[in-house]
Amino acid sequence: MISLADLQSRIERGELSPDAAIAQSLAAIEAREKDVRAFVCHAKSAKAAAHGPLRGIAVGIKDIIDTADFPTEMGSSIYKGWQPRADAPVVMMLKRAGATVIGKTTTTAFASRDPTVTLNPHNPGHTPGGSSAGSAAAVAAGMIPLALGTQTGGSVIRPAAYCGVAAIKPSFRLLPTVGVKCFSWALDTVGLFGAGVEDIARGLFAMTGRAEFSDIGGAKSPRIGVVRQEFAGEVEPAAEQGLAAAIKAAQRAGASVQTIDLPEMVREAWRIHPIIMDFEAHRALAWEFSERHDEIAPMLRANLDETVGLTPSQYDEARRIGRRGRRELGEVFEGVDVLLTYSAPGAAPKGLSTTGDARYNRLWTLMGNPCVNVPALKIDGLPVGAQLIARFGNDAGALAAARFLENALAGSH
Amino acid sequence: MISLADLQSRIERGELSPDAAIAQSLAAIEAREKDVRAFVCHAKSAKAAAHGPLRGIAVGIKDIIDTADFPTEMGSSIYKGWQPRADAPVVMMLKRAGATVIGKTTTTAFASRDPTVTLNPHNPGHTPGGSSAGSAAAVAAGMIPLALGTQTGGSVIRPAAYCGVAAIKPSFRLLPTVGVKCFSWALDTVGLFGAGVEDIARGLFAMTGRAEFSDIGGAKSPRIGVVRQEFAGEVEPAAEQGLAAAIKAAQRAGASVQTIDLPEMVREAWRIHPIIMDFEAHRALAWEFSERHDEIAPMLRANLDETVGLTPSQYDEARRIGRRGRRELGEVFEGVDVLLTYSAPGAAPKGLSTTGDARYNRLWTLMGNPCVNVPALKIDGLPVGAQLIARFGNDAGALAAARFLENALAGSH
Repeated sequence: MISLADLQSRIERGELSPDAAIAQSLAAIEAREKDVRAFVCHAKSAKAAAHGPLRGIAVGIKDIIDTADFPTEMGSSIYKGWQPRADAPVVMMLKRAGATVIGKTTTTAFASRDPTVTLNPHNPGHTPGGSSAGSAAAVAAGMIPLALGTQTGGSVIRPAAYCGVAAIKPSFRLLPTVGVKCFSWALDTVGLFGAGVEDIARGLFAMTGRAEFSDIGGAKSPRIGVVRQEFAGEVEPAAEQGLAAAIKAAQRAGASVQTIDLPEMVREAWRIHPIIMDFEAHRALAWEFSERHDEIAPMLRANLDETVGLTPSQYDEARRIGRRGRRELGEVFEGVDVLLTYSAPGAAPKGLSTTGDARYNRLWTLMGNPCVNVPALKIDGLPVGAQLIARFGNDAGALAAARFLENALAGSH
Repeated sequence: MISLADLQSRIERGELSPDAAIAQSLAAIEAREKDVRAFVCHAKSAKAAAHGPLRGIAVGIKDIIDTADFPTEMGSSIYKGWQPRADAPVVMMLKRAGATVIGKTTTTAFASRDPTVTLNPHNPGHTPGGSSAGSAAAVAAGMIPLALGTQTGGSVIRPAAYCGVAAIKPSFRLLPTVGVKCFSWALDTVGLFGAGVEDIARGLFAMTGRAEFSDIGGAKSPRIGVVRQEFAGEVEPAAEQGLAAAIKAAQRAGASVQTIDLPEMVREAWRIHPIIMDFEAHRALAWEFSERHDEIAPMLRANLDETVGLTPSQYDEARRIGRRGRRELGEVFEGVDVLLTYSAPGAAPKGLSTTGDARYNRLWTLMGNPCVNVPALKIDGLPVGAQLIARFGNDAGALAAARFLENALAGSH
């Protein structure tokens, strides 16, 4: 993989020109894209910006995010060739920081569940996950050092885990979703993929200019609460092994680790996530549903057909539960710095008929807390991740704990 | 003006065909548009839907709201001829209820402050207000019974007051802002204009299907708290006369009325509204600011140029104040059912160089509470409104209190 932090250091020291760094990504795309299929479209040639902390950094943008210089097709034939007028704010944040938008990465249709053409770089017979399939795979395949995705259920953390890359789903609304095709306005969250935790921290710092993201080091002796989310259903042995490896490494590196049961209203919030998501999707995609129903991808169309009867009172009740869940979850963080849980139910599933399952992610998307995937180990050549979750608004704390864990895992090999 | 409630009754009784109701609006536009200039574009012919509670209702859509069948130009040459692919969810809500979208109404550039070409139907030498100028004026001129606008500062309630129509700025996020050009994602709110309070209540009921909006009658003996928002600066005599008329009519009709001082953190929230708005506008309009700076309308451009230095920490502090203000405002509603205040500093200002001032509106937009404008009286031929505000989420209560006041004012003439 290409490390953003490494590129920045070499560019700052004058060992690498920004244009050479971009050329390295173009060459990597040329070499790997036919086997990975991570891009909907990409530049054949591109130049670096002269200034900015991300000069020389080639980024991929999930194809539900508006770009002025590339079509934005939403993973759907309904938007074939669609060309937005403006770049989305998150794209402008990257460009103002000097990044070069190198192309658009694949997305499931409207960031839902119908698989893309992208293959898992670790094993082409397995899914890369979704919905941000192309962004995770492009970073994992060493084509680009940074990519944007979005998460409404588990669409950032899950593909990052399956592809073995670091990723952050920041606190809700840390990054604007303006110019991002909406599925659920209470859930949609823009996230970042990179080779390691330091890389995504640097990306977030450059995009936001927020001082708290400057120079994120590893947390010292973090208090970690392990949550297994039993209410979310069975886990596969691979995910339990990944979690166990993370716990063991963290303890050895000086963390205090305790197992935690989540309060009832938090568990209830897990249950009602789909009500909020589907009720809002029916409004967000109302035009597509009414006017282009037959062109909607089949899994999404079936899900929308099934949920057409959701009522405002079911939605209001679900939102009340969500608010109470957030309050009760806030109290959990009085005793721990971060929570540690599965990033996905296992390694990437075999085959390309599914993008995997968001059941260990969706609660945290609804709660709005920052989540980071840290690759924990590989089983039969496929990566397994661990997920760290910090208090709402403490994205820097989530990143610091993730660096701690990443270092701990590196030391334990 | 055309009453939506009256049209619905006549259509239901078979006295008026839906197509004849649409034809009435088309004829009214033909007759009045040259003197009012409320539309950016409109249909020359249009048919009614066969079904739905809004069949036969011609609606105008503010031109920052995406429409699949009309261009959406954002009041800016940057979007000249711009044709969205999809209807915004709020447009689909209207169409599914049977409404006929008859055209796009004028908006200040990106719903900011640069005046439109629209004239006040009560006096063409005065502004209709902004930013939803065309929607307010088109209803006031009797061209259409219903129109959509948006409010980020005071862009629904103020033009409604200046044009003498009823309008609601609902609770934040009651109506989705998906497909609406973003200025500030924490503030932008879609609202409705109609001839009277019953008309906008029926519009909201048809759009949302929410039972609480069915058959809104006048509130019985509401407890009204009068707030003069002295912290927002001087009021003109006309607005004070409007407020006094509303108080007197409400008391005579059986309301209990007391004067209330707003808590300190609510007053502070008034102060920091522009910080949140301008910080987010710099992100929402980043592409336009960087790539089309010279084409941005002059008042907006000057405001963006002045506020380019706003920092994340100023924004975070402003959001903290906003959250505390919401909490303290919630306590105010333990003692009263609604608040009553000015809709604007006075009647519509003379001339077309300004759209008036949002200083009595912006607090409530930030707090997220539902606000309704009720026309209170006319001074020198120009309408003056009164603004009712209910607890967050109690839009039905705001409408019921507004019907009470509307009836009380009708009785007091």
